[in-house]
Amino acid sequence: MIPLYNERNLLMSETQALASYLVVNRLEDIPQDVRHEARRAVLNYLGCAVGGSPHSAVDRALQALGPYSGKPTASILGRSERLDPLHASLMNGISSHVYDYDDTTPKNYIHPSSPVASALFAYASAHPVRGREFMHAFILGFEAESRIGNAVYPAHYDVGWHITGTAGVFGAAVAIGKLLGLPLQEMVWALGLAATQAAGLREMFGSMAKSFHPGRSAQNGYSAALLAQAGFTAGEHSLEGPRGFAAVQAAHYDLSKITARLGVDFDLRANTYKPFPCGIVNHPTIDAAIQLHHEHRLTPETIRAVRLRVAPLVLDLCNQRGITRGLQGKFSVYHGAAVGLVRGRAGLAEYTDEAVNDPAVRRVREAATAAGDPALTEDQAQVDVDLADGRTVSRLVEQSLGNIHRPLTDRQLEDKFRELAVLALPAAQVETLIAQCWRIDDLANVNELVQNAVPALAGSPA
Amino acid sequence: MIPLYNERNLLMSETQALASYLVVNRLEDIPQDVRHEARRAVLNYLGCAVGGSPHSAVDRALQALGPYSGKPTASILGRSERLDPLHASLMNGISSHVYDYDDTTPKNYIHPSSPVASALFAYASAHPVRGREFMHAFILGFEAESRIGNAVYPAHYDVGWHITGTAGVFGAAVAIGKLLGLPLQEMVWALGLAATQAAGLREMFGSMAKSFHPGRSAQNGYSAALLAQAGFTAGEHSLEGPRGFAAVQAAHYDLSKITARLGVDFDLRANTYKPFPCGIVNHPTIDAAIQLHHEHRLTPETIRAVRLRVAPLVLDLCNQRGITRGLQGKFSVYHGAAVGLVRGRAGLAEYTDEAVNDPAVRRVREAATAAGDPALTEDQAQVDVDLADGRTVSRLVEQSLGNIHRPLTDRQLEDKFRELAVLALPAAQVETLIAQCWRIDDLANVNELVQNAVPALAGSPA
Repeated sequence: MIPLYNERNLLMSETQALASYLVVNRLEDIPQDVRHEARRAVLNYLGCAVGGSPHSAVDRALQALGPYSGKPTASILGRSERLDPLHASLMNGISSHVYDYDDTTPKNYIHPSSPVASALFAYASAHPVRGREFMHAFILGFEAESRIGNAVYPAHYDVGWHITGTAGVFGAAVAIGKLLGLPLQEMVWALGLAATQAAGLREMFGSMAKSFHPGRSAQNGYSAALLAQAGFTAGEHSLEGPRGFAAVQAAHYDLSKITARLGVDFDLRANTYKPFPCGIVNHPTIDAAIQLHHEHRLTPETIRAVRLRVAPLVLDLCNQRGITRGLQGKFSVYHGAAVGLVRGRAGLAEYTDEAVNDPAVRRVREAATAAGDPALTEDQAQVDVDLADGRTVSRLVEQSLGNIHRPLTDRQLEDKFRELAVLALPAAQVETLIAQCWRIDDLANVNELVQNAVPALAGSPA
Repeated sequence: MIPLYNERNLLMSETQALASYLVVNRLEDIPQDVRHEARRAVLNYLGCAVGGSPHSAVDRALQALGPYSGKPTASILGRSERLDPLHASLMNGISSHVYDYDDTTPKNYIHPSSPVASALFAYASAHPVRGREFMHAFILGFEAESRIGNAVYPAHYDVGWHITGTAGVFGAAVAIGKLLGLPLQEMVWALGLAATQAAGLREMFGSMAKSFHPGRSAQNGYSAALLAQAGFTAGEHSLEGPRGFAAVQAAHYDLSKITARLGVDFDLRANTYKPFPCGIVNHPTIDAAIQLHHEHRLTPETIRAVRLRVAPLVLDLCNQRGITRGLQGKFSVYHGAAVGLVRGRAGLAEYTDEAVNDPAVRRVREAATAAGDPALTEDQAQVDVDLADGRTVSRLVEQSLGNIHRPLTDRQLEDKFRELAVLALPAAQVETLIAQCWRIDDLANVNELVQNAVPALAGSPA
């Protein structure tokens, strides 16, 4: 448990209590099941980052900001270009989130690994870091980020903050701060410099700027730790102060969630991995649609009308209609239903511009309506399909694939990793990476793994 | 006036209308009085940046982030080190705000020039820019920033946003975007990438992180323009969208202030320049205290008690007591009153750690009380001093020195420039700079001026 009282026996603020915990915590204090979940999170993250690395969003960010990079001491996951570690953090964050395929903690809708691991892999590609220290920093960054998110969720998210961006910067600052060995005062400043950079609007959903959020969070959190280390001061009540993160960025909040059972409960245990590369609230609908496709051997011509019954939040987040771009498809529950029913799958190929404009998919998408039902949880959905022969077929999903009660197995995570990583790397290298991820805690230098996550220099695609 | 309807005769959104205005505007469209006020703003900015450049906040930021700089093609105002233009923007922003001596638009409490000019001077030190184009970009960046601030003020500021940071990133994006010649679509994206980086908490006041805000805004706005130029997409309703800047970051807002009389009214006309390097709401109190010091030849021993009557906002912003650091003094109306009464002045020397801990100043500060009075405006204050001989002397200031009704003259601005710039530059160079600022519109290359704003390489203090 954490020291809630400081050495003068005064009750500590949340900022001070969290920073104290982070500074004194040892890897031995982390339970083994949490350490395994962290490896699963890192495997899933790495697949997303490598798979997303050829995306044009990364190309354009590199074109714009690459000329401003410092000494190219760091690797970009999946790519042959090298940048300084801060810019590499940004690129890793963009690539790992651009397909919306990375992990999610459903209790707060954060994509938690991207901001933390994007900074850590950039750091570890430029500086020697042992695997166990890397994973310890990852776990602490993940927990700090998720707990700070819990404190402001749902009001913070509901008003329009992209919580992956806002909470993410804390996660990156903590992870890099832990690797730097920041003492208490500097860790408090790092949290302050993170808080005052917390940003990212949901208005950006459907554009490249969404994936910019975890990238910039990684880069800004990393910078916050460096600035704090150099003695650049910040406010010391950045979480709980009257003009601090919670008060400014949430109409309602509960700061006790930051420190409650800290060191005992771990949000990593509530982490989930997506089977489909789109907004997680669409998953039960897609799951039901795919089941119906296979069970009734549906073809586009047999589908006359589609009725979706979903949790109300789904329509708040994913009500996009009349869409024309792949990125928009990720925020359209109608598109998810359509590809599930028409194609019987919802992989990366179903979220391209081509798939969104596929006439058969478009027709079924336009034949779909949705109703919000407060009786359904966000893991549940019902899909009713009226067929050309007059019949109606239905499927109610009560626990969506990939949710906390139907988690992807380690083998399913490996399969997902392969689907993604082969977009940028040779198959043999992909298998080596998978093996290294499972034994990352034992690596003497995480850069051994990073060098397998970039194309070999000979025959580089760049 | 601006085109409120697009070519298809549809009413444009605020984002689109603002971007359209910015793209089509020509320098000839800007009235001469606004162009002169812009030169005054740039002179004042440049003095603050050069004078603040030796501050330890800049040293520490350079120590932390300098090793990550790209090719050193840009100058840092006041310093001999060179960085890439993005990092130079950050350093310029820190130095120009660290003494809280830069300009203010009292209608929205933005320090408007720092985010805009910090990016522009970094850009112009690395790329050839004619003076007239530089000033045009400055004016448009200033106006966009201030108008976006107007739309969300006061709710946005009241809840705890440091509006210089949040609105500032728009100003920098617009200014650099104008220099880059962004077309409409890219200007809309630049505004979106600015919106989604808008950050900065008032909880940081009293620490170095406050001056980090305009610096990071300059750097992030500059990046937003570069990313947009490269085709990195963003949400296209970043100002007015349901999850956009105004809706997310203000409980109440009025978007019509962004476009009302755009091109006719200019917020530069409402810009003010501080005579004292501290929070502007303290100025009438300091003004009254200095007048009492001179009129009654006050010495510390003669002062028994001090009573301040101030606008309520003053106590909201500047109620710090029990202070020990110079930076805190800027947010203590009691400290402002004390130095005015004891020393008869409130220059940079009155906001050092030494001055805050000066026993005579401390005693008078601790003998001061303050009451908020809704009948007073933020330009007004009354100071009553009980003297050792039993008399009470009083002064009511109705228009504070430096406010819009008692503006600093061009000559007073030059004197202020000298006070600041000699902290980093030889006196002869300071005089050259002043002359160049007044004729900046005529410069063939603004870098001629920048090279007089850095120490000569021979005999460099670094």
